[in-house]
Amino acid sequence: MKLYEIAELLGCKGIESSIEISGMNTLSDAKEGEISFLSDSKYEKEISDTRASVVILPPPKVHLLPEGVIALESDDPYMSVALLSKHFAKPIRSSEISPVIGEGTTVYPTAYIENGASIGRNCTIMSGVYIGAEAVVGDGVTLYPNVTVYRDSLIGNRVTIHAGTVIGSDGFGYAHTKMGEHIKLYQNGNVIIEDDVEIGANTTIDCAVFGSTLIKQGSKIDNLVQIGHNCVVGEHSILVSQVGLAGSTTLGRNVVMGGQSATAGHLTIAPFTTLAARAGVTKSIVSKGIYSGFPLMEHKIWLKMQAKLAKIVES
Amino acid sequence: MKLYEIAELLGCKGIESSIEISGMNTLSDAKEGEISFLSDSKYEKEISDTRASVVILPPPKVHLLPEGVIALESDDPYMSVALLSKHFAKPIRSSEISPVIGEGTTVYPTAYIENGASIGRNCTIMSGVYIGAEAVVGDGVTLYPNVTVYRDSLIGNRVTIHAGTVIGSDGFGYAHTKMGEHIKLYQNGNVIIEDDVEIGANTTIDCAVFGSTLIKQGSKIDNLVQIGHNCVVGEHSILVSQVGLAGSTTLGRNVVMGGQSATAGHLTIAPFTTLAARAGVTKSIVSKGIYSGFPLMEHKIWLKMQAKLAKIVES
Amino acid sequence: MKLYEIAELLGCKGIESSIEISGMNTLSDAKEGEISFLSDSKYEKEISDTRASVVILPPPKVHLLPEGVIALESDDPYMSVALLSKHFAKPIRSSEISPVIGEGTTVYPTAYIENGASIGRNCTIMSGVYIGAEAVVGDGVTLYPNVTVYRDSLIGNRVTIHAGTVIGSDGFGYAHTKMGEHIKLYQNGNVIIEDDVEIGANTTIDCAVFGSTLIKQGSKIDNLVQIGHNCVVGEHSILVSQVGLAGSTTLGRNVVMGGQSATAGHLTIAPFTTLAARAGVTKSIVSKGIYSGFPLMEHKIWLKMQAKLAKIVES
Repeated sequence: MKLYEIAELLGCKGIESSIEISGMNTLSDAKEGEISFLSDSKYEKEISDTRASVVILPPPKVHLLPEGVIALESDDPYMSVALLSKHFAKPIRSSEISPVIGEGTTVYPTAYIENGASIGRNCTIMSGVYIGAEAVVGDGVTLYPNVTVYRDSLIGNRVTIHAGTVIGSDGFGYAHTKMGEHIKLYQNGNVIIEDDVEIGANTTIDCAVFGSTLIKQGSKIDNLVQIGHNCVVGEHSILVSQVGLAGSTTLGRNVVMGGQSATAGHLTIAPFTTLAARAGVTKSIVSKGIYSGFPLMEHKIWLKMQAKLAKIVES
Repeated sequence: MKLYEIAELLGCKGIESSIEISGMNTLSDAKEGEISFLSDSKYEKEISDTRASVVILPPPKVHLLPEGVIALESDDPYMSVALLSKHFAKPIRSSEISPVIGEGTTVYPTAYIENGASIGRNCTIMSGVYIGAEAVVGDGVTLYPNVTVYRDSLIGNRVTIHAGTVIGSDGFGYAHTKMGEHIKLYQNGNVIIEDDVEIGANTTIDCAVFGSTLIKQGSKIDNLVQIGHNCVVGEHSILVSQVGLAGSTTLGRNVVMGGQSATAGHLTIAPFTTLAARAGVTKSIVSKGIYSGFPLMEHKIWLKMQAKLAKIVES
Repeated sequence: MKLYEIAELLGCKGIESSIEISGMNTLSDAKEGEISFLSDSKYEKEISDTRASVVILPPPKVHLLPEGVIALESDDPYMSVALLSKHFAKPIRSSEISPVIGEGTTVYPTAYIENGASIGRNCTIMSGVYIGAEAVVGDGVTLYPNVTVYRDSLIGNRVTIHAGTVIGSDGFGYAHTKMGEHIKLYQNGNVIIEDDVEIGANTTIDCAVFGSTLIKQGSKIDNLVQIGHNCVVGEHSILVSQVGLAGSTTLGRNVVMGGQSATAGHLTIAPFTTLAARAGVTKSIVSKGIYSGFPLMEHKIWLKMQAKLAKIVES
């Protein structure tokens, strides 16, 4: 897409450059030829080092741009990004190269593998499985029936995914108009699942807006778990059934989350933290420990609170 | 089914009419030739205007019927409706007309579309998708892999449904015998999804008992959400992951429900209401605002309560 | 697998017996030729009656073994069982006998039925359904699209399972190394669903580690419910949407669980107990009643507590 076309789409006047813009990305990850954006002032510090060729940002921030980076001024950069994201969205199909299937791999007849995908050796890809374009599956992987793997997902070695689980569905992101409508932010990123991860049945892991949602080595995830876009699940973490992680939350290694526990978005949970069943996390956790309740507190405080409440009722 | 057969089935004596009963419906929606019922006294006011030919109702209520409407007396009308519903249940397959597929639409080879279904133009119907009899899908719709659309569902234009989601599964309704058994109320209605709705992965939306479960224009629904039979989700509402709506609840437009929040059944939520994550609604909400907690309260009250509880624990 | 091979695998010295070990099982269910284990002292009382040929157990417990039973000493029997379980795990495919399909049964063309499975009469097996090896499905069963039934599952007569539901996925069980890694306990058991059960959409029911996860006659289970390994759901129980049962919990008959309620593992819930929506059960319930809250209390106490809390906030 040429820059003047983008400018026109976003209603930015006076931009006549016809340089080709190859993609969208964050300030820190954008490469030359890509367009980026500043929609949240906490990312301001990344502007000076960006390698993006163009940045969408509010007029008062234009002076922050390094020399040679073109500004597209927008009063609502997040909305501009959403509007533009549709034009950079990857199609469901984008390759004419037949999928590569490794030696010793069994693919059931009703599985469907898109062109451009690649599957390693000694895998079992069962009935009804879908593997999207450019997805890469390692060796010794078992995908149980009706698993869906969206395009660009990367799945490591010896990964097991149980029936009905969805890897790489679109993250839940919209910009909101003044009329109350929601403009989709098309998801540009992917999901990476490292080696030796096991995922239960009917779980959902969303792809990243930009970059990757990441499930690190050896993690074990139970049934009906929701993992939002851009989350990172640390090595050897354990997520019990019906857990929910909102977008962009990072768990350290060996975090344990009990059944139905959940976190808000954009948090960091310290390594070796244990969250009891139903715990609800709304702030980052900096020290490992056992936490309970909603709002969250140390488990021993929660027990004390329950004892006090019981006394109040008796009184 | 002839009326005397219905009477016999329900153990109502003295009914020998052989008029053909074409279907079951609610008092307000029943047409001539249909049978209706009064199982909850709050619907009594609808009796006088009903166009049903026959009504199942308790003996003390028979005098409420308009002239010309035949009464089938039952001490447990809900049970009578359940017993009868099986005989009016629609079969999975009911048409010999090949499905209609619009121009520009891609249907993957392992998708299955029943006779009598119709799909618009420029849709993508991916692998493992099922579209039931008499279902109608609009233009520009994307159904990701392994989506199931039950019979009679109506899906508007530019709707996107992510992998594994189920539209139109049976609502959860049973009449209970004195022996503790549950008699299924076969679901007669459907699901309607209006234009520009997006639905995440592995979500479930049940069909209506009678009438329609309705997802209005522009709503956005995340992964693993449950929407019960006969719910109405207002225009441009946002339902975050793991939300649950029990049956017959109506959300106004632009309602926002945070992750894992839920409502009981038969409630009305005011337009522009925001429910925080984990909020649990047990009474209708008449004024828009921000609400939290279970039981539900204004968010600012909830914050105050948490502060007081923290003090109690410290004391 | 020969006993000396097992001993070598587990690092037990001095065992040279080459007797063939045919399988793994619990102390109470093991048969001659099988290997069992004692990993939790609460099962010590079952040792004296075990018919296992070999038992893995800690050195101080060896003296409890009946005469003729061979001991494999292990400081961490649970880890030993996990390491060994992989070698006794059943393959996805294990039979060359074509599946048996009863008279009057419709199987959609994209359903996949493994060899060794058997389906009764007058069933409807819809598109995308998977039925595993040695699974047995009764008469009059409807499996809606994209249901997955893992190997060895037993499904009774007149059972209905809605779209996307998964029966028999692996239970969530791991032994943990000192380095924080998780060693999978391969699941050896199955799921049994008795007659007249109905299960909603996108629900997950895990198979048992050993023995069976059991859903008894006439139970009704809603959408997005999680049932862990080795649970027992009593006759005519009702589990509303988004309920979660952790492993090895037993519900008596006619238990009702409201939406999003949940139980911890290894509990027993008295027959005819009602759990309100969101109830969280952490201890066994011995007397039927209506319970609410987390921690759980009698519903009337919960109401009283809420009233007291409201007063505290006002003060």
